[in-house]
Amino acid sequence: MLARQLLVGAGSSLRRYSNFSRGAMAASTMQAIRAGEENVRQQLAQINEEVQKLLALKEQLKQLTVEEDGSGEAVPAKPVATSEPTSGNRNLSLKTPKGTRDYGPEAMALRQRVLDQVISVFRKHGAETIDTPVFELKEVLTGKYGEDSKLIYDLKDQGGEILALRYDLTVPFARYVGMGNVFNIKRYHIAKVYRRDNPQITRGRYREFYQCDFDIAGTYDPMLPDAECVKVVCEILSEVGVGEFVVKLNHRKLLDGMFEACGVPADKFRTACSSVDKLDKTPWDEVRREMVEEKGLAEETVDRIGEYVTLNGGAELVDRLAADEKLKGIRGAMEGLEDMRLLLQYCEIFQVANRVSFDLSLARGLDYYTGVIYEAVLLGGGGGKDEEEITVGSVAGGGRYDNLVGMFNPKRKQVPCVGVSIGVERLFSIIEARAGGKTRTNETEVYVASAHKGLHLKRLEILNKLWEAGVKAEHSYKLNPKLLAQLQHCEEYQIPYAIILGDGELSRGVVKLREIATRKEEEVALDTFIEELRRRLSVA
Amino acid sequence: MLARQLLVGAGSSLRRYSNFSRGAMAASTMQAIRAGEENVRQQLAQINEEVQKLLALKEQLKQLTVEEDGSGEAVPAKPVATSEPTSGNRNLSLKTPKGTRDYGPEAMALRQRVLDQVISVFRKHGAETIDTPVFELKEVLTGKYGEDSKLIYDLKDQGGEILALRYDLTVPFARYVGMGNVFNIKRYHIAKVYRRDNPQITRGRYREFYQCDFDIAGTYDPMLPDAECVKVVCEILSEVGVGEFVVKLNHRKLLDGMFEACGVPADKFRTACSSVDKLDKTPWDEVRREMVEEKGLAEETVDRIGEYVTLNGGAELVDRLAADEKLKGIRGAMEGLEDMRLLLQYCEIFQVANRVSFDLSLARGLDYYTGVIYEAVLLGGGGGKDEEEITVGSVAGGGRYDNLVGMFNPKRKQVPCVGVSIGVERLFSIIEARAGGKTRTNETEVYVASAHKGLHLKRLEILNKLWEAGVKAEHSYKLNPKLLAQLQHCEEYQIPYAIILGDGELSRGVVKLREIATRKEEEVALDTFIEELRRRLSVA
Repeated sequence: MLARQLLVGAGSSLRRYSNFSRGAMAASTMQAIRAGEENVRQQLAQINEEVQKLLALKEQLKQLTVEEDGSGEAVPAKPVATSEPTSGNRNLSLKTPKGTRDYGPEAMALRQRVLDQVISVFRKHGAETIDTPVFELKEVLTGKYGEDSKLIYDLKDQGGEILALRYDLTVPFARYVGMGNVFNIKRYHIAKVYRRDNPQITRGRYREFYQCDFDIAGTYDPMLPDAECVKVVCEILSEVGVGEFVVKLNHRKLLDGMFEACGVPADKFRTACSSVDKLDKTPWDEVRREMVEEKGLAEETVDRIGEYVTLNGGAELVDRLAADEKLKGIRGAMEGLEDMRLLLQYCEIFQVANRVSFDLSLARGLDYYTGVIYEAVLLGGGGGKDEEEITVGSVAGGGRYDNLVGMFNPKRKQVPCVGVSIGVERLFSIIEARAGGKTRTNETEVYVASAHKGLHLKRLEILNKLWEAGVKAEHSYKLNPKLLAQLQHCEEYQIPYAIILGDGELSRGVVKLREIATRKEEEVALDTFIEELRRRLSVA
Repeated sequence: MLARQLLVGAGSSLRRYSNFSRGAMAASTMQAIRAGEENVRQQLAQINEEVQKLLALKEQLKQLTVEEDGSGEAVPAKPVATSEPTSGNRNLSLKTPKGTRDYGPEAMALRQRVLDQVISVFRKHGAETIDTPVFELKEVLTGKYGEDSKLIYDLKDQGGEILALRYDLTVPFARYVGMGNVFNIKRYHIAKVYRRDNPQITRGRYREFYQCDFDIAGTYDPMLPDAECVKVVCEILSEVGVGEFVVKLNHRKLLDGMFEACGVPADKFRTACSSVDKLDKTPWDEVRREMVEEKGLAEETVDRIGEYVTLNGGAELVDRLAADEKLKGIRGAMEGLEDMRLLLQYCEIFQVANRVSFDLSLARGLDYYTGVIYEAVLLGGGGGKDEEEITVGSVAGGGRYDNLVGMFNPKRKQVPCVGVSIGVERLFSIIEARAGGKTRTNETEVYVASAHKGLHLKRLEILNKLWEAGVKAEHSYKLNPKLLAQLQHCEEYQIPYAIILGDGELSRGVVKLREIATRKEEEVALDTFIEELRRRLSVA
């Protein structure tokens, strides 16, 4: 099977390749591969039979192991550390995969609250939602992420399609739009994405993490959707409450124009861009050195870039650059500036002018941007005790990508898009670090308790009435729980009320209604306790 | 690398095995494996170098292919059908992976509505929520799903841990509980699971699909949590509105006791169980034949089973079986009956006695159940035009599994669990088939329209006021959209109100407020339109 897989894979690469212009290098590569394959094919055929036998035996052994594993009692667990170095293998690895974690009730309650805030802003702007599969055909992802493509999680070839886990939500969105012949849509998508990165767990970076994307696809007038994306970012960051922030703005066409004006050869625009992208973390001197020594740009070119990328401001900067002698003759730069002028005007109307900064050092890594780009960064003071660490860096980013959808349309029809991705994992970390006290993890409104033994049937009856009336209610799953334990449960889970049943009260047709926070108790009639409870819950 | 993987895998199996009692069979298997491995090891070492070379060449070829693929423009798209059979390969495959689909705004709106109903019932019963990674270490899943293990999606070995996509939410839950030393938790988990099944898309069965699980873990008194799970199922099916249904109940201990009473050898309990499990789709005669001919059970044994499995009813059936001469002496059967008696009593109090049926033919496939099992089936009449097809089969199921958590606890400590999984994809299909008319996909409350050219800045200003006031509002992203197009958009998206701006009105300090459904228009003052809108929205 190993052999077949190897050869089939190579064959399909060859077939695909045969549609392309055949350079000398590729042709010789193919020749070498064919020869190598023939050689390996023969040898693999020889040992294939033996491997099959071995696999069958291994399967047999696994069955034996599994059966004993499954019983849970047949073999008593051994302590993990003994004199035998291998004895620990008896136990399963008790962990989640590297770079992933479980989210318990408290983490989930907090995350859900932040997500709800984000969604409510998306919905306030009229967005619909869509969903796409967690994996895509590998070729859909291929060539979209530059050198980060190595971080994609591939699925094993189990004799069907070649699949990989999604790396972001933008490429699946573009596939959805292109493939479905959708010509305009404003959608949000909140889902997990997967990157085989080196997890920096202390900084809240995992291999499985949420992305929250809001995108507007459609052929519209300049900067109207773009400005709304910036507004959405500002609303979300204000709503979630992460302290002061600034949304840096720039434009890919202006960046390219600036490189051209400084004398960067066209084929080095992207690599120059990726150097500039480091300016948020790296001092200019170091970026300068990289551009000169590693990327081979002329010193005077780099110094000219250095003069531009230190600039930031507002509308006055647009004016200044529009009058710049070196940029004036470059059409792309002027188009970019025209967009920036409009964008800043719209930001003014949207009352976020004080939140944005036109910043020529903003470059953003991804290749697919074609117009406005933006990135929100916190200005510090937003975090809890680990303030320094978690407030550094970007919490949202995005931009315009007008040429991505066409790659997925059967007729190569383009649908211009602009969007933003909220760095919601960062927001979770900040809110988590700041959250004092215990977060409520359930929504139970009333706990039905027994004051003494023998009341479980009555409890079930009361519970059923509450449920039928739509009240969120629970009880102990023990027949005769201790009253103290029941009340402690209410305090621990911050359940606001308890109904306490006792024979004395029941015989008089009443129950005790206890307010957990104040510990005040009051008798209420059995036939009105639901109304009374509702009244109190609606006031709170 | 292939060679290394094979050998390392075998090595760890051997080490793990070495902790076990060594039966003769296992020992000879191990000997054979060792010999086979040594043989293969030598041969693999010989060709390893060649394989490495070949892989390097293939990688080189892939790079060449990828670069051209990624540009999107370097090579113009060719029509899919030409005389060259391979020309289509230039294009990306425009599809989602087999057995998966995208969910557009309408499908998502409908699914979200059903999920919200399900979640609200879970929360009414006091459940918290947790989340686990989409993939697990492969060994966590190994040996939990019987022969269905072949349907697990494996991830490619990219030089780290061996991972697989989750197959259900129960095993990850048990891992969470066992690994975290959690001793009681009532949680729900709504997430997608993955099975490389043959998708039956017409019946709404996909390879990626939602599971909605509610489980209660903890050491409690008999049947109190179990009865609540049955209640939860009944509430959800009533709430979602899928027509009449019945929740079949049975007990694994009773089933095993019944097999024992009928003369089934202990080692054939599970295989007998899987035959009985087919009775919901297969007539008795055929199941009988399978048990006799394929599973080798004695005819009189099978006929005795046949007498039991046709039985169903309520508390009276418990009494009848408790008095059954053959069952009386079997402890497990009596324990199971005691549980059933309690469960039916609690169901009575929860007012779902008319929804449940004690049914001796219910077996359920999964191996890990240890006590009560249940399964909800629709009784027909719940669907739309495809009624016949979509109302057949189970829409919820679950049971008690007391021995699963211990497999994941370092000290093998057990935490008894009972839970239910809602077949929410079935529910989606039913609701989808039934949904007449267009489902709303956004929540926009008001659309800001221009009556004529030149009003886009005013529109942005009004929009900003609405957003700041928390009103869900949007507009056209065109500078000068046609009024008719704007109003059509409102009708298409079922947006209830439009504010129409015009120079005449604005000069008088008013705007037109249009109710989309009735097309009634009214002038409202610019400084009070938000209050007016709010008033109308709150009435609606």
